[in-house]
Amino acid sequence: MVRRVAVIGAGPSGLTSIKASLDEGLEPTCFESSQDIGGLWRFKEKPEPGRANIYQSVIINSSKEMIAFSNFPPPAELPNHMHHSEVMLYLRLYAQAFNLLQYIRFKTAVVSVSQRADFALTGQWEVETENAEGQREKHVFDAVLVCTGHYTQPHLPLTQFAGIDNFKGRYFHSWEYRNADGLQGKRVVVIGIGNSGTDIAVDISRVAERVYLSTRSGAWVIGRVGQGGLPADVVMVSRLNIMLQKLFPSWINRKLENKLNDTCDHKLYGLKPKHSFWAQIPVVNDDLPARILSGRIQVKPNVREFCDTRVVFADGSTIDKVDVVVFATGYNYSFPFLPPALQDKCEHRLCLYRHVFSPLLTKPTLAVVGFIHGFGAVNSLAEMQARWATRVFKGLISLPAEEVMMKEIKKETVTMNQRFRCSERNPLQVDYLPYMDSLAKEVGVKPNLLWLFLSDPKLALQVFLGPCTSYQYRISGPGMWAGAREAILTQWQRVIQPFGTKVAPEIDTKSSSGLSIIISVSGAALLCGLLYRKHIASSFSQ
Amino acid sequence: MVRRVAVIGAGPSGLTSIKASLDEGLEPTCFESSQDIGGLWRFKEKPEPGRANIYQSVIINSSKEMIAFSNFPPPAELPNHMHHSEVMLYLRLYAQAFNLLQYIRFKTAVVSVSQRADFALTGQWEVETENAEGQREKHVFDAVLVCTGHYTQPHLPLTQFAGIDNFKGRYFHSWEYRNADGLQGKRVVVIGIGNSGTDIAVDISRVAERVYLSTRSGAWVIGRVGQGGLPADVVMVSRLNIMLQKLFPSWINRKLENKLNDTCDHKLYGLKPKHSFWAQIPVVNDDLPARILSGRIQVKPNVREFCDTRVVFADGSTIDKVDVVVFATGYNYSFPFLPPALQDKCEHRLCLYRHVFSPLLTKPTLAVVGFIHGFGAVNSLAEMQARWATRVFKGLISLPAEEVMMKEIKKETVTMNQRFRCSERNPLQVDYLPYMDSLAKEVGVKPNLLWLFLSDPKLALQVFLGPCTSYQYRISGPGMWAGAREAILTQWQRVIQPFGTKVAPEIDTKSSSGLSIIISVSGAALLCGLLYRKHIASSFSQ
Repeated sequence: MVRRVAVIGAGPSGLTSIKASLDEGLEPTCFESSQDIGGLWRFKEKPEPGRANIYQSVIINSSKEMIAFSNFPPPAELPNHMHHSEVMLYLRLYAQAFNLLQYIRFKTAVVSVSQRADFALTGQWEVETENAEGQREKHVFDAVLVCTGHYTQPHLPLTQFAGIDNFKGRYFHSWEYRNADGLQGKRVVVIGIGNSGTDIAVDISRVAERVYLSTRSGAWVIGRVGQGGLPADVVMVSRLNIMLQKLFPSWINRKLENKLNDTCDHKLYGLKPKHSFWAQIPVVNDDLPARILSGRIQVKPNVREFCDTRVVFADGSTIDKVDVVVFATGYNYSFPFLPPALQDKCEHRLCLYRHVFSPLLTKPTLAVVGFIHGFGAVNSLAEMQARWATRVFKGLISLPAEEVMMKEIKKETVTMNQRFRCSERNPLQVDYLPYMDSLAKEVGVKPNLLWLFLSDPKLALQVFLGPCTSYQYRISGPGMWAGAREAILTQWQRVIQPFGTKVAPEIDTKSSSGLSIIISVSGAALLCGLLYRKHIASSFSQ
Repeated sequence: MVRRVAVIGAGPSGLTSIKASLDEGLEPTCFESSQDIGGLWRFKEKPEPGRANIYQSVIINSSKEMIAFSNFPPPAELPNHMHHSEVMLYLRLYAQAFNLLQYIRFKTAVVSVSQRADFALTGQWEVETENAEGQREKHVFDAVLVCTGHYTQPHLPLTQFAGIDNFKGRYFHSWEYRNADGLQGKRVVVIGIGNSGTDIAVDISRVAERVYLSTRSGAWVIGRVGQGGLPADVVMVSRLNIMLQKLFPSWINRKLENKLNDTCDHKLYGLKPKHSFWAQIPVVNDDLPARILSGRIQVKPNVREFCDTRVVFADGSTIDKVDVVVFATGYNYSFPFLPPALQDKCEHRLCLYRHVFSPLLTKPTLAVVGFIHGFGAVNSLAEMQARWATRVFKGLISLPAEEVMMKEIKKETVTMNQRFRCSERNPLQVDYLPYMDSLAKEVGVKPNLLWLFLSDPKLALQVFLGPCTSYQYRISGPGMWAGAREAILTQWQRVIQPFGTKVAPEIDTKSSSGLSIIISVSGAALLCGLLYRKHIASSFSQ
């Protein structure tokens, strides 16, 4: 019988894991190596080894309604895309609202997690911790939730860059980047076109002489500002859109890519990747096109070699007098405190059933939470994983047999690698909604749309056509929340409020994600769209 | 017989006026009060009273091909939207290429310009100058070109803001703004949503706690990044588009506004002006929507009053603890050195025939150049004015009688005020292409499209469908330039080159400015569009 649960890390995944444990009547103890909650989102003036870091200008890529925990809508006055300080504020409010802080032991790092001798019988773990004074302590737990994230180990592949030893300029990993201080008037090369690389290039380009953004494979770039100026994810990530995408995958993909090229021709801009839009989580950046058009950033291919202060690119072009190189080359992931057997890999990913449970454990009492990527917010994904994991701990949900899980992991890995552009740096990716729904189904909280349309059509319309916010998973079932309906019906109000204009949004589902033609032939969907629009407008005129 | 011409000011208008004078065999002497050329574009570390100023981050709103002087295409490698330092570079190259510097007397301010006693006979002017040492000198000139610009006199309407005397924070006019240094973490109100106000709000929002952008009347906001990532003006300002706009004005206006609202719902964003898109030169800003969406900037209505550190807005909302207020309230214009009679106004504008010549002068030997606004580059407008003015000076073109000019000015002012949103701060506006063409016709350099289609269809296609660059006014007639054809046929190459990708642009004239339906019913135009696209593509595959 699981009772005491160790939660490792007090970032967003850790916080929601404490909450999930409490909801299931468990007794969580969270170990956080630093002095505060927030993980990645806690801005550190100086990078702290072994921890995730962000730079001063970071604004979260997902919008506030999409990152909301399922029973804690963010304050309406917070902006749609929050600065990291506001994300921290939201996390603090969440921790405060559910009294989570009392379960956290700060300045206490987990050194090792190992199965107890009687694990086969009890499923118990020995967790060894070390406090700031270096004092070690051993604890016994019935279960463990690993919430340590994956942006802690900078990947700096210097050996792949010929001549870097002779480079006379300064270089560092993006993990170290705080702001553009000291880069005024410099000539800077940023290597890597992930979200960090692009953000940092834009940041530096405001003060540097020029920034060269080097990319091996390009990327699709989308803005936070979506249709009509609404948050792009709020407009794009709906059940309707995801259904249409499933029905007409390549067509939707083409429409989306055309739409992005309409804003900025990726080929002309040197950004065009070989992979399709859905194959990799896109780069979210509103500023990049204008920075390129004004010549502040120039996109370059991969770096071939360094020489003195010169950088030679794969196409033979060179840039002289380079002062600084930023390696935005991503992160390695590691869970050094876990037993080696749990670190087994399937291709690039960890060998975890649904990215949470190792099939190797005879008792499913250790879960990895928040080590997940999808075209949606990690908060919601982590929360759903934690809700599922804690119910598995309690024995309310059973996992399949080891070989069944192994088979599924292997099969899923093949599919994943076919569909997505996985690599060592992007070890895994899931389809946001199907993944959420599949876990929700296990937990028993997947919204039953048919039943909803019959019993509460107003709510059903929002659930089907509106943004796929996590409140949907609190309508019914275990952990059901009486406020869920209200949270869903008022989500547009919270999107609109920060603008201060009280204007009903014109949700044009037709063109929102390039679906114009599909919807125009799909009478039913159109009807829904119209009803929905009318409904939103009326909810504002009240 | 006019021979000696005084050019007042060595900004872009002054430089092109020297050039125009030389082209007409005149002898220009340019008086520049500062130590360098460039006017507005010369960045000054500290604001210099009586001179136009720019801030560190300024990137020019018009693209390089649109600001190009008619026989001096910018170097292909310069970015499409240049930083002010690159605009200066272009101006220096222009001055160098045509040996203009030798005609400039730096550090020499013009104190007064007055008609000589025998003006009625000679048309001569007495120009009094003062050098840096305070020494005054009098010169006689046959004609004068006034090129002193219009961003030199900050308008700071403090009396319109109740309680400003009791405001405990700091305030200053946007003219003083250099960069956001010292505004880190501050709460800032920017008053005025012109190009400066918006740019400055965006700039400050990167470091401030929050910026409140107060606007009385709103504005249409467009980006520099247009269709497919090409410069918006290059795609929008074509003879075809302007013809269509003339044919279907309200329809095109609606399509354009819808397109802008599609990117960012101006009502939702608190930006929606009462005036239509074409009634006022729009605000050009690529960053504003994302800054608003992320809450870094909040749009507010007009300020009602200040009180202590509180700002009260017209809707009753208040912001407390305001540290800094930036008055981006525009500029007054004045020509203090001119005889009072020449400063007569018609409504808000100066009483100048075609915004250049005062009808009151018995001899047309004084012209104002570059005091003009249109949805296009001032450089080209000023150049055309200078070409016209110098030919009027020489007697090659005659102006109508005084009463005819007066009548036309009055009539035109009425039309202008009906069509455009003119005010003391925006005293005048012209339709870019019709104005250019009307002067070009007088000079004898307006391209004859019918003749061009018969004699050189390749060129004609570019002139009709391509961006309305000023090279068009060098194809034939006085000042004809042998390189004009080549400059026009290679303009897309110069647009593409800075991207470094050598990709032929997909010029989708259909959707470029929301003209999709019009063009789809306009078979001929569509055919042209297709031919044009093919032509551009082929010119890149050579």
